[in-house]
Amino acid sequence: MQNQLFIQNSLTRKKELFKPISEPNVGMYVCGPTVYSDVHLGNVRTFLSFDIVFRYLKFIGYKVRYVRNITDVGHLVGDGDEGEDKIAKKAKLDNIEPMEVVQKYTNGFHSVMRLFNIQDPSIEPSATGHIMEQIEMIQEIIKNGFAYESNGSVYFDVKKYNATHDYGTLSGRNIEDLISNTRELDGQSEKRDSLDFALWKKADPHHLMRWNSPWSVGFPGWHLECSVMSTKYLGEKFDIHGGGMDLKFPHHECEIAQNVGSNGKSPVNYWIHGNMLTVNGKKMSKSEDNGFTPEELVTGNHKLLEKGYSPMTVRFFMLQSHYGSTLDFSNEALQAAEKGYKKLVNALKTLKKLKPSENSSVHVTELKNKCYAAMNDDFNTPILISHLFEGVKIINSIHDGSASINDENLIGLNKLMDEFTYDVLGFTTESSSSDGNVLDGLMELVIDLRKQSREDKNWSVSDKIRDQLAQLNIKINDSKEGSTWNHEE
Amino acid sequence: MQNQLFIQNSLTRKKELFKPISEPNVGMYVCGPTVYSDVHLGNVRTFLSFDIVFRYLKFIGYKVRYVRNITDVGHLVGDGDEGEDKIAKKAKLDNIEPMEVVQKYTNGFHSVMRLFNIQDPSIEPSATGHIMEQIEMIQEIIKNGFAYESNGSVYFDVKKYNATHDYGTLSGRNIEDLISNTRELDGQSEKRDSLDFALWKKADPHHLMRWNSPWSVGFPGWHLECSVMSTKYLGEKFDIHGGGMDLKFPHHECEIAQNVGSNGKSPVNYWIHGNMLTVNGKKMSKSEDNGFTPEELVTGNHKLLEKGYSPMTVRFFMLQSHYGSTLDFSNEALQAAEKGYKKLVNALKTLKKLKPSENSSVHVTELKNKCYAAMNDDFNTPILISHLFEGVKIINSIHDGSASINDENLIGLNKLMDEFTYDVLGFTTESSSSDGNVLDGLMELVIDLRKQSREDKNWSVSDKIRDQLAQLNIKINDSKEGSTWNHEE
Repeated sequence: MQNQLFIQNSLTRKKELFKPISEPNVGMYVCGPTVYSDVHLGNVRTFLSFDIVFRYLKFIGYKVRYVRNITDVGHLVGDGDEGEDKIAKKAKLDNIEPMEVVQKYTNGFHSVMRLFNIQDPSIEPSATGHIMEQIEMIQEIIKNGFAYESNGSVYFDVKKYNATHDYGTLSGRNIEDLISNTRELDGQSEKRDSLDFALWKKADPHHLMRWNSPWSVGFPGWHLECSVMSTKYLGEKFDIHGGGMDLKFPHHECEIAQNVGSNGKSPVNYWIHGNMLTVNGKKMSKSEDNGFTPEELVTGNHKLLEKGYSPMTVRFFMLQSHYGSTLDFSNEALQAAEKGYKKLVNALKTLKKLKPSENSSVHVTELKNKCYAAMNDDFNTPILISHLFEGVKIINSIHDGSASINDENLIGLNKLMDEFTYDVLGFTTESSSSDGNVLDGLMELVIDLRKQSREDKNWSVSDKIRDQLAQLNIKINDSKEGSTWNHEE
Repeated sequence: MQNQLFIQNSLTRKKELFKPISEPNVGMYVCGPTVYSDVHLGNVRTFLSFDIVFRYLKFIGYKVRYVRNITDVGHLVGDGDEGEDKIAKKAKLDNIEPMEVVQKYTNGFHSVMRLFNIQDPSIEPSATGHIMEQIEMIQEIIKNGFAYESNGSVYFDVKKYNATHDYGTLSGRNIEDLISNTRELDGQSEKRDSLDFALWKKADPHHLMRWNSPWSVGFPGWHLECSVMSTKYLGEKFDIHGGGMDLKFPHHECEIAQNVGSNGKSPVNYWIHGNMLTVNGKKMSKSEDNGFTPEELVTGNHKLLEKGYSPMTVRFFMLQSHYGSTLDFSNEALQAAEKGYKKLVNALKTLKKLKPSENSSVHVTELKNKCYAAMNDDFNTPILISHLFEGVKIINSIHDGSASINDENLIGLNKLMDEFTYDVLGFTTESSSSDGNVLDGLMELVIDLRKQSREDKNWSVSDKIRDQLAQLNIKINDSKEGSTWNHEE
């Protein structure tokens, strides 16, 4: 039952039972960032969604090779075939070498991934690292008749491809609609048709990033790298391809065409697309000035943010929505998530202190089955979280004495809560362990002194403790099993 | 005076005034790790040495482009032209794709660099990302007559090169000695001469990493990547090339030959080589079983380590030796470094609390000049540290009232101590700031309660505080300006 995983497949528009090509191995490719600016919060959501996919596949026993690329060349301003290369443009603005731009924003991207505890992929290849392989794939596509050279550049011939194959299956578009929606080419264009897309672009004399090729000194088209790197590291046919919804067309559609055009095979069995995020109901964008960075979200340094939210609060907030739904940022929603996450963390602390009874009014097998069922239903994290809160309720009622649990169920409850909270949902404790231990030790002392001062009716001491803890946002919760504390940031 | 930097140049064996090719820009290349296993402590020392060079060049106003590569192909077991590729061998052992090995150990390497607060280079290119450029450089070398193809592989012709150029200048070897020290080639060898080294190797059928080339499906020789990537990102002629002493021959010697052989120019003005480290007087090696990892050094989980040492203690320990000297690890030396570093850190804390007087018995200009002079003398960090301890002495004598400092000198002392400790030597405070603040706030409360309990002669409370702090290794230092505390790990 635990392996009956169903995935909403964008290609078939159906929820399908997941069957890998070569059990227990799973190959997964996700389109990574274009490293020319700080990572966008929308990207964080996308990579978090696939972090969950990666974690859950491993959790239920698959051996996953997860490839997520770095786009460091070829992605043009405007996402089409015209305009400057995004990275070269930024390099020109900052008057540095393009690869310094790449290094800076790749490091920044990695540090944001770490901040939110998003696991590293198995391989993280870059487009500039695979220029040779891209040239070789273009040669294959030309040989098969689906691409043509024009003035030193090479374009994919969409109409010719569509005559024998289907262009548009993934995004559900048909070529006639596409044609009627694109503007006429002017006489100057190198392309035969406006639907055609670049596989190789001849570099103009001022272009900073350039490589030799059979056609010109130039650079690869943006769509090509993903076809090349997924084929190189996962094979011509692999299990899962993910990315943000906005990449479905044209990027992923072009990827399929390139793969079929070079080796005859549609590359992917399960396409998964993550949905977008909005801020107070509006699309996050630079022109709306509502696009805070992940760091701003954590520090609170943005006019739209009432305060900062910890990385795990943000993670919790995002996972309270299904990856396939849109997600709206608001201070209210984030503050609710903050409370919810804290409640979960505190319950997990309480859980470690529970003692088993002879009898159990609590049985965890059913809860465990529900947790698996939620994740097996297309990685439904919001439903999983609601089940974990059933666990929280159970923990708290054992703690306050209104329920009891025996040894076997207590072990099961610990395993269940830990595995789904940490391994599957990827939450992590937020303080460094060395400081954390000292902190715990000091709080033990302070709680002890507080208790003694109350017993001694030494109000000046107990007031002093109360005031200073309040100033540090430390809250003490007393119960008959003793006092616990937590720090509200 | 601050820019009168002298560098010990391995190429000329002299200490020379540093003059960059294109002031204020400096180009620096350092040979990075081969990512097939956990990073070696010797590597940490090398990268720390060049971290100091990078930081100090920036500190005195240069704009530095620092390129440090990742070797992810071509480095063969045994460092010569025979044997398996180190990464492919590890991939075979672990039964995974070579690029998964690369990803794993690149991430591990980065995390160790972060642990010791070693800054990221400006560009971190990889060998597999520059196969095309390597093929192109080989073509140039062949065209110039300094390389030949043999059975699908390409070798550099050392004797032919030496007929018109000098092979061996950097390492101070002459070719006759080299010839008499190498074994005769057997009749099977593809090489014309045993001194020749591979630029391209034809892959045998089982070899995992392979690319098309004009000569064979194969992979580049190890030495080639550094010539290619330094030329691509720093130009044919650049300022500084660094690496560990063990790379001087043959790796760096071959680099020079490749550059001269392809474009006629010796690439580097200043070669800098870091020295090795030993453990209890012996070379660190796997066969001696005395090679603990950086993580083991920090956790203390190794039979040769009496305890763990914090990353900044290790950094301090390493910087107490000049990069050009050997450095010996021992528990005694590390524990001495731990004490020394703690003394420095505590003095910096005390410094923040000092109040200026009307008159000054202290003058900081001289101390400042000595700090610059130490670093300008070939980055002499041990001498710099000894000067910072003069600063510590000054701070402590102001704190205990035996010296006084006026406003101007206090500002100067703060700037001097902060800049050389944090910017130049790259130390960093070790606790996360959020936990650190709570810790400071709690300690304020505890110190206050301790004082009050003593005044009230409430010995049960004051004993409790004393015992718990002792258990947490927290030490309180009382002085007439109030109490400070520090945590011994």
